[in-house]
Amino acid sequence: MTAKRLSIYDTTLRDGAQCEGLSLSLEDKLRIAHQLDRLGVPFIEGGWPGANPKDVKFFWQLKEQPLTQAEVVAFCSTRRPGRTAADDPMLQPILAAGTGWITLFGKSWDLHVTEGLNTSLEENLAMIQDTIEYFRSQGRRIIYDAEHWFDGYKLNPSYALKTLKAAADAGAEWLTLCDTNGGTLPHEVTQIVSEVIAELGESVPLGIHTHNDSEMAVANAVAAVLGGATMVQGTINGYGERCGNANLCSAIANLQLKLGYHCLDDDQLAQLTETSRFVSEVVNLAPNDRAAFVGRSAFAHKGGIHVSAVQRNPLTYEHIRPEAVGNQRRIVISDQSGLSNVLAKARNFGINLDKTDPASREILDRLKGLEHEGYQFEAAEASFDLLVREALGQRERFFDVKGFQVHCTQAGGHEDSNALATVKVAVNGQDSLQAAEGNGPVSALDAALRKALVNQFPAIAECHLVDYKVRILDSQSGTSAKTRVLLESTNGHDRWTTVGVSANIIDASYQAVVEGLEYGLLLQKNAKKVIQTS
Amino acid sequence: MTAKRLSIYDTTLRDGAQCEGLSLSLEDKLRIAHQLDRLGVPFIEGGWPGANPKDVKFFWQLKEQPLTQAEVVAFCSTRRPGRTAADDPMLQPILAAGTGWITLFGKSWDLHVTEGLNTSLEENLAMIQDTIEYFRSQGRRIIYDAEHWFDGYKLNPSYALKTLKAAADAGAEWLTLCDTNGGTLPHEVTQIVSEVIAELGESVPLGIHTHNDSEMAVANAVAAVLGGATMVQGTINGYGERCGNANLCSAIANLQLKLGYHCLDDDQLAQLTETSRFVSEVVNLAPNDRAAFVGRSAFAHKGGIHVSAVQRNPLTYEHIRPEAVGNQRRIVISDQSGLSNVLAKARNFGINLDKTDPASREILDRLKGLEHEGYQFEAAEASFDLLVREALGQRERFFDVKGFQVHCTQAGGHEDSNALATVKVAVNGQDSLQAAEGNGPVSALDAALRKALVNQFPAIAECHLVDYKVRILDSQSGTSAKTRVLLESTNGHDRWTTVGVSANIIDASYQAVVEGLEYGLLLQKNAKKVIQTS
Repeated sequence: MTAKRLSIYDTTLRDGAQCEGLSLSLEDKLRIAHQLDRLGVPFIEGGWPGANPKDVKFFWQLKEQPLTQAEVVAFCSTRRPGRTAADDPMLQPILAAGTGWITLFGKSWDLHVTEGLNTSLEENLAMIQDTIEYFRSQGRRIIYDAEHWFDGYKLNPSYALKTLKAAADAGAEWLTLCDTNGGTLPHEVTQIVSEVIAELGESVPLGIHTHNDSEMAVANAVAAVLGGATMVQGTINGYGERCGNANLCSAIANLQLKLGYHCLDDDQLAQLTETSRFVSEVVNLAPNDRAAFVGRSAFAHKGGIHVSAVQRNPLTYEHIRPEAVGNQRRIVISDQSGLSNVLAKARNFGINLDKTDPASREILDRLKGLEHEGYQFEAAEASFDLLVREALGQRERFFDVKGFQVHCTQAGGHEDSNALATVKVAVNGQDSLQAAEGNGPVSALDAALRKALVNQFPAIAECHLVDYKVRILDSQSGTSAKTRVLLESTNGHDRWTTVGVSANIIDASYQAVVEGLEYGLLLQKNAKKVIQTS
Repeated sequence: MTAKRLSIYDTTLRDGAQCEGLSLSLEDKLRIAHQLDRLGVPFIEGGWPGANPKDVKFFWQLKEQPLTQAEVVAFCSTRRPGRTAADDPMLQPILAAGTGWITLFGKSWDLHVTEGLNTSLEENLAMIQDTIEYFRSQGRRIIYDAEHWFDGYKLNPSYALKTLKAAADAGAEWLTLCDTNGGTLPHEVTQIVSEVIAELGESVPLGIHTHNDSEMAVANAVAAVLGGATMVQGTINGYGERCGNANLCSAIANLQLKLGYHCLDDDQLAQLTETSRFVSEVVNLAPNDRAAFVGRSAFAHKGGIHVSAVQRNPLTYEHIRPEAVGNQRRIVISDQSGLSNVLAKARNFGINLDKTDPASREILDRLKGLEHEGYQFEAAEASFDLLVREALGQRERFFDVKGFQVHCTQAGGHEDSNALATVKVAVNGQDSLQAAEGNGPVSALDAALRKALVNQFPAIAECHLVDYKVRILDSQSGTSAKTRVLLESTNGHDRWTTVGVSANIIDASYQAVVEGLEYGLLLQKNAKKVIQTS
């Protein structure tokens, strides 16, 4: 039996772009569209042509760099009340975008027609019908998105159904039920989708478009498919307005791996993690480590006994094989680490150690010693990798640090504070003394270090700090307690985390900055055997 | 008709603490427990006594600072194979913790018994039964958590049911079905819960414990309640191992506001947003702005027409009233809704403000301005109190700070680093310039400030720093991003938290140290109306 096929419809570039804090350049949109095309998503909603110049250019540009398999879709609303579709100038840029498919959204909820559009219920039906017929007359194929469907249907099912029938009669090839406010629960979704199919028959397939306001967007998408929907709309990583849209990474993985539907080919599914991280890099939002299926922590295991059990029989501790979505099992290093944890972890970095090798014992001892001092390698794989290399005598010394000085002054108002840092670094046996200013001591140190290194190592320019966390370790000691700094860096492709510990927060930060830069150089040098910790 | 009651069971302090990157001090655990108690959660799982010294101390400490309504619960596994419960030393610290309730977890899945525990299926049943009977003989009440329930039940339902029956027969008062791997889907959960109730009857109520590996934890918790479960286990903000646990903020809001169950009183439900943010501050993880119900973006509206439609008829654009969970609508233009929050918060400090008082508006404006700069007052009540007093013209200037200088040097090895700070402070119009050394810049500043103040204010000597947390606010700006420092101080009786924000971490720390000392003086002066923030 072949698996029932579902059509995945991505709206990262349109609805996803409504996400607070997310803004996409034209180039970003093109990069994401091509990545989605490679992933095998059949429909990619590109934007609302005419809403802004960027969306117009996006569709033009795609004609020069066409997608290989996906349909790019233009999005717009029904014509405005009281005119014909051909006379509504709003619809002309949609046609000019030149897509084969158009997604048209219209009102399902009587209240939104009378209060939002200030028009009659009849006119709304005519708007849906006219607009679809007009686009059809121009040779376009139509997906109809029924906005506020679930709320409208609950309060006035007969009118809501009329809007769908108007769209179907006019020639829409898909009818998408939208939970625009995100307030519906899965058991309601399954039931309402089933009722719609009972009412309209199966001649026009249904889609589902959900929002995450109740933390139910993915569950609702799956619930709709169980009720009979065959198109799933959502965004990569669930980006979207307010609490976001249905996260396609989770929806696809659940539907295909748990319920046996076919969304993507298996090799495409294995690109899901990479796609998630690629999109988060392009939109410049920190990836959610705890994301289902594709997150960095999704298959992370702690604790000695548990870890050896996982390795013996992974499927009793993991709900899917991480490789199926292109993710990987991660053994987390913590103060309870036994030798088997350390060896498993080292293997992730391509370092094969034997239990009986004295180096293994040495690494474990150093690890325990450093953890006792307050270092934490659970989230600092890059520092762990450097530590293993050092114990094996394989740590490459790109440079040696020889101390720093930092001077901060503040004259009374906070705007007046500034910092000056001086560092001394030796590269190839040659000392370099450099100074730099910054608006804080860590940025001044970072700047001085880069100045000292960039001529010898131009790759340093591509590395930058992504996140910085500080924790007091022994709070009883007051302000002289030890502090631990975790610092996350990126070179645009990889992310890695380093750790520093000291009673002096500047010193702890400095250690983490130095190792962060060192690891960036190591990654660049070993580009062929890149160790991706993100 | 009265709403059907559900029992909420929080495991933020135990299962939530498994979250990667989250580590809780004893003090953090106590603060969170008291906040959950105020929220009205009836069961708070505190940890596994004996697993580490911190968990043992937590239960002791709670006896000195008891909760007002919640039951604190100790967590542990069944006795080990091949001995009696009374002879298993692992169980003694559980009894020593002195809780009325114990949550005991045991194996439901035959494979985990034979492969994980290396014992027989019969012995596993005996382990469940014995351990419960032993704890019951010591006067304890038992919640039984059936680990890996759903996977075990799917593969061997008759054995899985035997484990539940063993627990019920031995006297467990709740049976919790756990989706430990997080791989189950909502329609399966509803069905399996119904089957269990059909099999066991309703004499022992069921609980649900879900994980988010399929992005279904909240949906599964709701699905279980629809199937008949009456206890919901989860964590604040969904913190937990891998992809996290069921997010109680979303589960409670859905169950109470959408399905009409009673989890909390209405005024407690209105503390949900504050609780979510408080916990994220204490655990030092960035709050998820896009979180359902409690996120900063959850009720954010963009766009002019949409905004006026929202204001005319909010319930057609918002799935719930944001105030029901203590959140607020956010509109790009200035909104009024923050005022009542501010007034409510000020009342916590014994300051009664009227809505029409111009000072109220001024406080709100300053608060918004400061929050825009990155200040956060959710967990920094002392700074908030100082801000309110300042707006009312009632802030007492014990001293004025007039700038600082800090000099740090490190000669190569980390042990060599040291810091020298100079501060200028005016007391009663007299400038005092003092310098001090420290092993880090903040301790040097703290020492210099104390030197400058202690003669005039001997009470300063009793204040000291308890905890210090740093967060990068705008991680895109790299090392020059703004940092926020939260600093907790104590005088031996009270604890209070202050906040500082600056691009310069030293400056941000200095602000928090200065306000921390100022608040210590205020508390000492107003000893009769002490404000306890923990």
